[in-house]
Amino acid sequence: MSDAIDAALDAIKFDTDGLVPAIAQQHDTGEVLMVAWMSRESVRITLMEGRVCYWSRSRQALWRKGDISGQTQVLKELRLDCDGDTVLLLVDQHGVACHTGRRNCFFRAWRGDQWVEIAQPLVSPQELYKAG
Amino acid sequence: MSDAIDAALDAIKFDTDGLVPAIAQQHDTGEVLMVAWMSRESVRITLMEGRVCYWSRSRQALWRKGDISGQTQVLKELRLDCDGDTVLLLVDQHGVACHTGRRNCFFRAWRGDQWVEIAQPLVSPQELYKAG
Repeated sequence: MSDAIDAALDAIKFDTDGLVPAIAQQHDTGEVLMVAWMSRESVRITLMEGRVCYWSRSRQALWRKGDISGQTQVLKELRLDCDGDTVLLLVDQHGVACHTGRRNCFFRAWRGDQWVEIAQPLVSPQELYKAG
Repeated sequence: MSDAIDAALDAIKFDTDGLVPAIAQQHDTGEVLMVAWMSRESVRITLMEGRVCYWSRSRQALWRKGDISGQTQVLKELRLDCDGDTVLLLVDQHGVACHTGRRNCFFRAWRGDQWVEIAQPLVSPQELYKAG
């Protein structure tokens, strides 16, 4: 298992910071939920645990999505692009993906020459992070 | 119009290289087509022309998607994430998005401990780039 995952990791081209961008997409609806970054170790953990783990650039630490908020992402499939430098995660999102309490992070749309908020929070951030 | 676009650009947080990652998603099917990078100028061009223009890191130049291959992307909507550092482009992809001739770039899936090619080219790269 570990050898196989090493083979998976070797196909991924991490940047000079050791990271690749990763898109999380809801597997059944196609909704693009968020983009975050993964290190080699976070990809390994994600494949082994079947639950998405990112690398937090702000905290410079592994980030098991949902550890604080409970809004975990179960991995359905990991895909790699032609250049090997971007990962697509097909996931089952539990709850909301965005720290603002919205289902996904892309809630600002450029319409009629202005940014329009096209989604409202489903839960308050205070509620999400009360355990933190 | 230009002033409005300046306002759009001010909400986007470009990295130290002046770039943001941009996801292109087929607007009606939800298919994630590709990820590339945009500079401030490429976002401006995309909004003004209604056709996606990236920044090519390898060529260090503006990259109007499809100029050589004909596989253009008509912009349906530009969205911005919560942190302002990732762009989601809802597009209508003409032809294929991937330089390998596949519809999208994410054709390698990690299944049963190996990478599996889950899509085949719809057109040969030679055919795509004959005009180049």
